[in-house]
Amino acid sequence: MFQAPERLKVSCKEDIPTPSLVVDLNQVTHNVRAMADYAKTHGLALRPHTKTHKSLTMASLQLEHGATGVCVAKLGEANVMAEIADDLLLGYPIVDNYRADRIAQLANSKKIRLAVDTMQAVECISAAAAAAKSTIGILIDIDVGYHRTGAQDPESALALAKAVESQSALRLDGLFCFPGHIAGPPDQQDAELAAMDRILLQVIDLWREHGLAATIVSGGSTPTSRTSHQVTALNEIRPGSYIYSDWNCVSGNWYQLNDCAASVLATVVSDAVPGKVVIDAGSKTLTQDRHFLQPDTGGFGHVVEYPQARIIHLTEEHGEVDITACDQRPQVGQRIHVIPNHICPCVNLQNSFWLQHGPDDFECLPVEARGCVV
Amino acid sequence: MFQAPERLKVSCKEDIPTPSLVVDLNQVTHNVRAMADYAKTHGLALRPHTKTHKSLTMASLQLEHGATGVCVAKLGEANVMAEIADDLLLGYPIVDNYRADRIAQLANSKKIRLAVDTMQAVECISAAAAAAKSTIGILIDIDVGYHRTGAQDPESALALAKAVESQSALRLDGLFCFPGHIAGPPDQQDAELAAMDRILLQVIDLWREHGLAATIVSGGSTPTSRTSHQVTALNEIRPGSYIYSDWNCVSGNWYQLNDCAASVLATVVSDAVPGKVVIDAGSKTLTQDRHFLQPDTGGFGHVVEYPQARIIHLTEEHGEVDITACDQRPQVGQRIHVIPNHICPCVNLQNSFWLQHGPDDFECLPVEARGCVV
Repeated sequence: MFQAPERLKVSCKEDIPTPSLVVDLNQVTHNVRAMADYAKTHGLALRPHTKTHKSLTMASLQLEHGATGVCVAKLGEANVMAEIADDLLLGYPIVDNYRADRIAQLANSKKIRLAVDTMQAVECISAAAAAAKSTIGILIDIDVGYHRTGAQDPESALALAKAVESQSALRLDGLFCFPGHIAGPPDQQDAELAAMDRILLQVIDLWREHGLAATIVSGGSTPTSRTSHQVTALNEIRPGSYIYSDWNCVSGNWYQLNDCAASVLATVVSDAVPGKVVIDAGSKTLTQDRHFLQPDTGGFGHVVEYPQARIIHLTEEHGEVDITACDQRPQVGQRIHVIPNHICPCVNLQNSFWLQHGPDDFECLPVEARGCVV
Repeated sequence: MFQAPERLKVSCKEDIPTPSLVVDLNQVTHNVRAMADYAKTHGLALRPHTKTHKSLTMASLQLEHGATGVCVAKLGEANVMAEIADDLLLGYPIVDNYRADRIAQLANSKKIRLAVDTMQAVECISAAAAAAKSTIGILIDIDVGYHRTGAQDPESALALAKAVESQSALRLDGLFCFPGHIAGPPDQQDAELAAMDRILLQVIDLWREHGLAATIVSGGSTPTSRTSHQVTALNEIRPGSYIYSDWNCVSGNWYQLNDCAASVLATVVSDAVPGKVVIDAGSKTLTQDRHFLQPDTGGFGHVVEYPQARIIHLTEEHGEVDITACDQRPQVGQRIHVIPNHICPCVNLQNSFWLQHGPDDFECLPVEARGCVV
């Protein structure tokens, strides 16, 4: 189990060693409030996906601002988040005894829901819950177009629902979906959102014909995190990245640069090679996740102080920055801020992050659930 | 500071939760011995780069088998490895006071060498060592063709060497290089190795004319880890990936499939979508590091049990596997082994790994230096 580092405080950003993830509390709070307002306005339950921040501090902030519970991907994340949340959804197929047994035990003290898309999952979870004498709520995962997981048609979803209903240790709660295929700007998503709605309504109608109710219909992704109300079938959303935002979010026009609350503070460590500088943030800090619109040319993040700079190549601890388009050359020893392409795996690489409370007030906090892949 | 998990043991691979990194001790020991033999045969000092395994157990194994010390990239790695090594090279430009001060303090109890390629680094380290009343050995980083860091010509290398010589807290030890541009099969590297040798010899000759000696000439990379003896100027190598090997190593013809000592044990968690299965190892387990020869089509690792399978897409916790070319369809719940494209960042994502001592003997060990990016 991860041992939280001592809570360090510094009063000057120059005292933060690099590379480090720095998070602005003002902006984070703004983002959390804005999403809570969106959900409330549209009558949607808000269940933030904690895979983005993996932080008890951030999850607590979300719960304080109206989240009904949290979403996690893995057992390890659930165990960490159970410290502060009583209502957890594992949005991931669990088909093995190890995870099923431990989740079933957790369900004795917490409200636990799981997403399933195979009969094997139903059987595995049912057996584990029966053995643990707990009850687990089940959402049937419906493929609404991303084609990663999920029942492929209403009939399959009905068969899974009936199987759940036949198990006394399980409770059929509703539907789960992830519209990962919808990645256009918010004002160009109408047709795809409508198609997604039709798929969900077909399942709901068929269930109703068979006397089954989808009390919860849970969806959500970052690109649809403020258009989900157009999907009439949904009554719960699970956005993740909105809390920090990232360069892909800005590039996709889902969020603005000002919404980005997290950046990697890095130091220029070499300018020996002409035309470039090297920063101390490589793939082990920023990840190799590419720019979603320009995977080959988009670079590995946005350099705040040098918008013309392009992080063209990452090795493990080196970030090579093409500065030929920059008006000024970054100096060796200078610090820059990088907004990573994809914040979620970037956070997962950090043992800790620095939360900025004010201009001269930084606190080092652990990333409690980082590395929780099981 | 990372708290090592309890050392767990299981006697059956089925008891290992997935996804997990599994390392075969027999194969690792073979790899460590083979590299030690290679270095000894060619009169090269062996200084393994511990960024690959980030493990005290593995570093100890390398030191027991003749390594003269270890190489690390970052201060955090140095602090971890100092627990078992007395001779450490930081193969990374240090230009900030935070790292310089702490390395200088470590140099009071350990033999510390640093690679530098800028005057700023010389000044920063010199001041820190003087303040700590320690002595730090310096290797001048020479760009031998990778164009990431390193002095660009013999004159620049000479200027840096003279600057080092002028500082009483620094000791000029020699040269450092990383031939990351040499990535062909070993039998097709002759011309590039010879060109690299010429660059190093030019610097050594110029230094000699000015009364300066390069006692240590340190090079090494995975693709050149068994051809480094062709570079006559080298007397030390710093291979990293050889201890575990990976799918890129096999694809580059630097190592064979049998040399791969580490794999990710994963579970098939969904087959709901036609033509594919989903495993529980995504980018937070395998990384988004692409196949080095086929970045767009090579997938994200080699599935041992289904060589025709192709891991076509990773999201954070999902690995989508195209199985249309497979004779048999993997079943939900089945476990498979994936040899990742690039083992080093993959290891860095794991909190722990399972060391296989024998057929029915697995031990869970911490990855002590994972996440040490500062």
